[in-house]
Amino acid sequence: MELSRYLARYSLNLQYEDLPEEVVSFTKLCILDYFGSAIAGSDKKPVQIISNLVKDMGGFEQAKLFTGGKSSVLNAALVNGSASHMMELDDIHKGSIIHAATVVIPAALAIAEWRQLSGKELITAVVVGYEVCFRIGEAVSPSHYYYWHNTATCGTFGAAAATGKLLGLTEDQAVDALGNAGSQAAGLWEFIVDGAMTKQLHTAKASMNGTMAALLAQKSFTGPKKILEGNRGFFNAMSEEHDVSRIIENLGQEFKILENSFKVHASCRHTHHAIDLLIDIFKEHQPVLEEIESVEVNSYQVALTITDDADPQTEYAAKFSLQFCSALALLNGRASLEDFGEEELWDKDIRALMEKVNVHVDPAIDESYPRKWGATVTVLLKNGEKIYKQTDFPKGDPENAVTTKELLEKFIGMATIIPLQQRQALAESLMNLESIENISDLMKTL
Amino acid sequence: MELSRYLARYSLNLQYEDLPEEVVSFTKLCILDYFGSAIAGSDKKPVQIISNLVKDMGGFEQAKLFTGGKSSVLNAALVNGSASHMMELDDIHKGSIIHAATVVIPAALAIAEWRQLSGKELITAVVVGYEVCFRIGEAVSPSHYYYWHNTATCGTFGAAAATGKLLGLTEDQAVDALGNAGSQAAGLWEFIVDGAMTKQLHTAKASMNGTMAALLAQKSFTGPKKILEGNRGFFNAMSEEHDVSRIIENLGQEFKILENSFKVHASCRHTHHAIDLLIDIFKEHQPVLEEIESVEVNSYQVALTITDDADPQTEYAAKFSLQFCSALALLNGRASLEDFGEEELWDKDIRALMEKVNVHVDPAIDESYPRKWGATVTVLLKNGEKIYKQTDFPKGDPENAVTTKELLEKFIGMATIIPLQQRQALAESLMNLESIENISDLMKTL
Repeated sequence: MELSRYLARYSLNLQYEDLPEEVVSFTKLCILDYFGSAIAGSDKKPVQIISNLVKDMGGFEQAKLFTGGKSSVLNAALVNGSASHMMELDDIHKGSIIHAATVVIPAALAIAEWRQLSGKELITAVVVGYEVCFRIGEAVSPSHYYYWHNTATCGTFGAAAATGKLLGLTEDQAVDALGNAGSQAAGLWEFIVDGAMTKQLHTAKASMNGTMAALLAQKSFTGPKKILEGNRGFFNAMSEEHDVSRIIENLGQEFKILENSFKVHASCRHTHHAIDLLIDIFKEHQPVLEEIESVEVNSYQVALTITDDADPQTEYAAKFSLQFCSALALLNGRASLEDFGEEELWDKDIRALMEKVNVHVDPAIDESYPRKWGATVTVLLKNGEKIYKQTDFPKGDPENAVTTKELLEKFIGMATIIPLQQRQALAESLMNLESIENISDLMKTL
Repeated sequence: MELSRYLARYSLNLQYEDLPEEVVSFTKLCILDYFGSAIAGSDKKPVQIISNLVKDMGGFEQAKLFTGGKSSVLNAALVNGSASHMMELDDIHKGSIIHAATVVIPAALAIAEWRQLSGKELITAVVVGYEVCFRIGEAVSPSHYYYWHNTATCGTFGAAAATGKLLGLTEDQAVDALGNAGSQAAGLWEFIVDGAMTKQLHTAKASMNGTMAALLAQKSFTGPKKILEGNRGFFNAMSEEHDVSRIIENLGQEFKILENSFKVHASCRHTHHAIDLLIDIFKEHQPVLEEIESVEVNSYQVALTITDDADPQTEYAAKFSLQFCSALALLNGRASLEDFGEEELWDKDIRALMEKVNVHVDPAIDESYPRKWGATVTVLLKNGEKIYKQTDFPKGDPENAVTTKELLEKFIGMATIIPLQQRQALAESLMNLESIENISDLMKTL
C-alpha cells in the first residue's frame, strides 16, 4: 500500500473519542501556545506585509486574520501561518525538527472557523496534522534539514492532513491531497544568511499550500499516489537518506504530538540548551564580564550549521546566533522576547563576551541528535575556576517539561497586544476548547 | 556580485526600445500562442477545479480569468497559469526544458491588466521573464529535471522577474523577489506515474508564487540574496550539477526567447521527434497495420524517462506515451488536439501497433541532449522493406521553424471556445500588441 494511503487512512479513521485525556490536554496547550505566538507576531513587519498583500488582493470573509479583519481561508492560513513563526517562540518537535503549530494550526483553524466546526473536531485535526508531518519529518531527518526548512516542507503535509480531516475527504481524496501537498513542498535555508523575512513566508505558504491541496482534493483534483516513496517523489528528490519505517511504525498506536516541545526562550531552538545552562550558571555565580576568561559551548553539528554566527547584524539574526544567545544568557540571565532588542544587540558587554565564546561540535552529542538536542558549556573564569554544565534536553522538551501554569504565563506574557481581561478569557476558552461547539464563536472573541 | 543581482539589474535595465524588431515579433507570437493554449484549456476539468476554488475564495476584480469573470492578480495568475498548460501545446525551450509561456505570461498579463500597463511594457516583461527562467533552467540542466519539473521550479523565477519589471521594483527589491521565488520553487515529477492533475497545479502555483514574491518585494519583504549559488540555495539543494556561467554569459547581449520552440502536436514535447518522422512515413507510404512488422524509436534518455509508457490508461497519459504517439502518428498521420480522445485511446489498431513499437536510448542522441531533442525511427515492413528517418530538431524548434501563418492557424484551431470573428479580432490585436496602450482594454475583449 502507498505510504500516503497509510497516513490518509489513519487521518480519516481517528476520532475525538479515541484520544486519551492526556492527548486532549496536551493538544489544547499546543493550540494555546500557537495563539500566544500568533498574537505576539501579528504586528511585526513581515506579518504586516503579508497581511497587506492579502488585503490588496481581497477575498470572502471566511476566517479571521490575526492581523485584524477577515479574509478567505487560504488568505487566513497564509497570514496566520506567518504570524505564529515570527517570535521564534513557537513549539518544536525534535525528532522531525518541525515547528508544527505555525503550519498545521492556522490551516485547521481557518477551515474550522469557515465550516463552523467544533473544538473537538479542531483538536482531532491538529493531532492528525502533527502526527503526519512529524512522521514525514522523522523519515527524512537529519539529511533533509541541511537544505530544507522541515517546518515548511514537511509541514505542508501536516496542513493538508489536518484540513483534509476537517473537510471530510474520502480516502482517495486524502491521498491526492497529500500528493499535491508534497508536490508544492518548498523552503530553502539559504535565507538564514541574510536573516531575511523568508522564514515567515515559508510557514505562511506551507499552511496555505497544504490547505489548497485539501480544498482541491475535495473537488476531485488528483495527485501523485506515491509522493513520498515514488522514484521521483519527496524522499528521493529532497533527502539524501530516508527511513520509510518512520511513516508506518506504531501509526495509530501512539500520539506523536506528545513528543512536542515548547519554547521558553525567544531564539532558535538550537540555542536553548546553551541558554538553559548559562542561565543556571548566571543564577549560581552571577559572573561579570571582567571575571570571564572564556565560554566553550559544545553541541551537535546542526546547531552550528544554523546558529554559528559571531557577528549578528539584526535583532532577528541575534536569535540565530549561538554566540549572542550564550553571552546574553550568561550576562543577563535571561533570553525572553524583550531581550532581543536593538539595545542588547549592540550592548558592549555582550559583544565583548561574544568574542570569548567558542562553539564546537561534540561528536558524542552529534551522534544522539536529533533524538537529543544536547549541549555542554564550560565557563572558565580568570581565577582558574571552571564551571561545567551539561544537558540532553532543553527546557520545554517532554523530558524536561514546562507546566501548564508556565505555558499559561507564557501566553499571558506574549499576547500583550490584547487587553489582559480579554487575554485571560481567551486562555480560559482555549483551555476548554473541547466544549466549544463552533470555532467561529471563539474567533469572534479575538 | 550575487547572481540574482546580475539578473535583477538586467531585468530592470532592459527597455522596449532595446528590443530588435525580430524579438518584438517573436515575443508577440509567444503571447499569441499562450492565448490559444489558455483559451483551449480553460474549460478542462483541472482548470475548472482551480477556477472553482478561486471563486469559492473570492478576491477583488483585478484581472480576467480565462475561465470567465475576474479575480485578484494572484488568483488570475493561478487560474490562467493552469489553463495554458492543459493541452500540452504550449511552447518549450529545449536548453532549459521549460514551458515559459504558461508561467511567465499569465503572471505578467495579470499585473499589466491590473496596473493598466501598455502592450510594450507587457512585451518587455515577457522577454525578461523568459530570459531569467531559461538561464536558470540551463544552469541546472539536465540533472535538475530528473526530479523537478523545470517549468514550475525555474518558471517561478521567470514569473517573479517579469512581474517585478512591471511593478517597477528597485534593484534590491528585485533581488529579494528572486530570492523568495526560489525559496518557493517546487514541483516534483512523481505525478507523471498517475497522470495526475498536478502538472497544471505546478504551472498555476509557479505563476502565482513568482507574482507573490514580486508583490511582497515591492512592500519591502526581504529575501535571500544568493538564492541561486548560496550554500543552501537552489543550485546546491535541487541539482546534482550546475553551471553558473549560464546565468551571466552574454546576459543582455542576446535574447534567449528567440530559442523558444512552438509545439504543433498535442502531446509531450519528448514525443514530437518521433511523431514528425512517423507522420512523414505515413504521408510517403501510408502503411496499414497488417504490413508493419515493427517500429523502432531511438531517442535520448529523458524522452524515455518521461514517456516510456506502453499502456496509457487516460487520454492525458496517452500524450505522455511514446508508444501511443508513435502508433497514432504512423496509422493516422496526425497528432493534433482532436486525436487524443477516448476513441483513439482504445482504438484496436493503435493498441495492436503499440505492441510492435520498441523504444530505446541511443547514446549519440543522448549525448546531444538537451541541445538537440533528436530521434531516429525505423519502420520494418513484413515484406522486408526498412524505412529509416532521423531528426535533430522537432518541428517548431527555431532550427525547424513554424511560420507566423502556421501559428495563426494553430491559434484559430485552438481558441474554438470563442466565436471565429472574435477569435480573428483577438489574433489581430495580439499581432499588434505593441500598439495597445492599456492591456485592460485588450482583456475586456476576451
